[in-house]
Amino acid sequence: MNHYQTRLEKIWEWMEQEGISLVMFEDTEGRRDATIRWLTGHPGDALLFLSLDRSLLVPWDIIMAKLYARADFVIPYNDFSRLPKKAIKGAAEKLGIPYGSRIEIPPVTSYPDFLDFVGEIPDYDILCRERSTASHALNLRMIKDAEEIAVIRKAAGITNAIIDLLEKKVRSGKVKTEADAALLIELESRKRGCDGTGFETLAAGPERSFGIHAFPAWTAAPFAGQGLSILDFGVRLGGYTTDVTLTFVREPNAQQQKMINLVEKAVKLAADGLVNGNETIHLAQAVDGLFAKSKKRMVHGLGHGIGLDAHEYPFIRNRPGSEWVLEPGMFFSLEPGVYDPIQGGCRLENDFLMTETGHETLTEARIIWL
Amino acid sequence: MNHYQTRLEKIWEWMEQEGISLVMFEDTEGRRDATIRWLTGHPGDALLFLSLDRSLLVPWDIIMAKLYARADFVIPYNDFSRLPKKAIKGAAEKLGIPYGSRIEIPPVTSYPDFLDFVGEIPDYDILCRERSTASHALNLRMIKDAEEIAVIRKAAGITNAIIDLLEKKVRSGKVKTEADAALLIELESRKRGCDGTGFETLAAGPERSFGIHAFPAWTAAPFAGQGLSILDFGVRLGGYTTDVTLTFVREPNAQQQKMINLVEKAVKLAADGLVNGNETIHLAQAVDGLFAKSKKRMVHGLGHGIGLDAHEYPFIRNRPGSEWVLEPGMFFSLEPGVYDPIQGGCRLENDFLMTETGHETLTEARIIWL
Repeated sequence: MNHYQTRLEKIWEWMEQEGISLVMFEDTEGRRDATIRWLTGHPGDALLFLSLDRSLLVPWDIIMAKLYARADFVIPYNDFSRLPKKAIKGAAEKLGIPYGSRIEIPPVTSYPDFLDFVGEIPDYDILCRERSTASHALNLRMIKDAEEIAVIRKAAGITNAIIDLLEKKVRSGKVKTEADAALLIELESRKRGCDGTGFETLAAGPERSFGIHAFPAWTAAPFAGQGLSILDFGVRLGGYTTDVTLTFVREPNAQQQKMINLVEKAVKLAADGLVNGNETIHLAQAVDGLFAKSKKRMVHGLGHGIGLDAHEYPFIRNRPGSEWVLEPGMFFSLEPGVYDPIQGGCRLENDFLMTETGHETLTEARIIWL
Repeated sequence: MNHYQTRLEKIWEWMEQEGISLVMFEDTEGRRDATIRWLTGHPGDALLFLSLDRSLLVPWDIIMAKLYARADFVIPYNDFSRLPKKAIKGAAEKLGIPYGSRIEIPPVTSYPDFLDFVGEIPDYDILCRERSTASHALNLRMIKDAEEIAVIRKAAGITNAIIDLLEKKVRSGKVKTEADAALLIELESRKRGCDGTGFETLAAGPERSFGIHAFPAWTAAPFAGQGLSILDFGVRLGGYTTDVTLTFVREPNAQQQKMINLVEKAVKLAADGLVNGNETIHLAQAVDGLFAKSKKRMVHGLGHGIGLDAHEYPFIRNRPGSEWVLEPGMFFSLEPGVYDPIQGGCRLENDFLMTETGHETLTEARIIWL
């Protein structure tokens, strides 16, 4: 049985339990949902409808669907005048959904659109809720299967090769600017068979590293000069991204040295919590406590799941509702960082895979002393 | 009076007409809204609250806000436990909004979140509707002001310089692969002062140009060999992007030649409709008619507004509800294209500015014969 089928069956099981006859997924500009790719292989811009035993894909690009997608039926979006409400009506007909059944639409559906759907298919019972098939799929995607772990390991290996190359070229003076670093990653990832980068690379030299997300993401400005430089990137292979951050340090002053020490302590403390059964929020609370002792505050989450999305479950953050329990197959980053408008920023981010016996650190990001 | 103030006053005027006391804008991952940048200069990841005479920005990154944002009050998102519903409650208090007033939340707010907001601030009348302040802002943003037009002209000039450079380097054989083309754009845009590219460059050699949006966006594969190659890119300057598509042609066969002829005819036909007062849907209908005569179908819209977003109002497409009336200050692309799984694709996209007397074509994308 192929992995798409295995995944679909898990979704169908959920639908049956919940008494849902038809579910709609949406992956469009502004409403991305990589679950369509996870369930069918289709890379993006589509609606997906699942009845209890059939799948119907509604892609923007029919040529792309023929190349990549596995679905029982494929109907071009144009056939529904490019309107989701027409598509849902057509899907219910095509898949023979009886009137009165429960049809679930994505939980991100806006309130005005929800009212619109209700008007379009009044003979069905429309569900739009947080505890949805879409969010159940996110929970399923949190535990990577063997197929996914194989791809992720390969992506991590490419990431590590690029980290080594970056270190070498910064040391030899071949990478001198933010642009040099960012373009090297763009090119080397593709040379090694990746789809590209997993998200916009953030390369910030000492003058700009105070930004959590440097703006613009990278420029022609110098990189890795005196002080702290941050480089945050991921490579995307077969849809799966990695996410690492390096800090390059040159002749740090006392305050910068303190920032580095704090980040390194935080990394160690967080990694100590990587034990099956532990709650993710405990890791974040421990690091927040460490920062508080230094009269610092971490202004972003400690880490996040990674996969087809650069940010997915589990989130590792100190916020109510963020109590994920660590278990084998989870893949996530930890990225403690500290930022100062004068001194710049220091962040160290690596990617971790939970295993039956503990965890593996798949990436080799580090503080690089120049 | 600076342009942020002018824009805010237009929003306040609308709020007053609509009897809205507080409006919330959201610009976050998955719910981008460049209106926050348009109104305050803040580049992203923030909530913005406007009462009838005050602005309160809630940024993720307070350092970034100090550098870029103009707002009466700035409160870090962390102070609201990073929860929009806490932030809206805090904003209503800070800005002294009386109980019972109308508070508007973004029209993209999901139905479950809508219920959540209603539960959090039950003493206010919460509006969530398509015809919202957010969509009114999109309508206002559709007509570019002098400040914006100046930036757009500069961005178009940089785009044209890069087009010329690309043509030269493809002809001389220096640009041989999709990666060569994409990386040249990444680097040259920044060298010329841009924030970067406006969206992920699509570079597809003859083997892959059948895709409307090539997947992956670009690879290490050959570019501009025998047949049709597509290059779709934009440069982003001060937040504003351009959007052009070139087709490179080498030794086309008869069918490819027909595709090129069709696209060139479509460009001419569409441009003939660029007259103040004309409805955008008429342009799209004319081109759809032309394609139908050749037994082809255009599988995407004819064009779209451009600005702080790569796709914004007006949309130029043959779909009910797409009846925008052309008027001075509108800036948009027209991009007729035709795709075939065997022959590849041909698309030509340029950017147009409506003026008092007609229109100007700001970019110089073209079919490049090799």
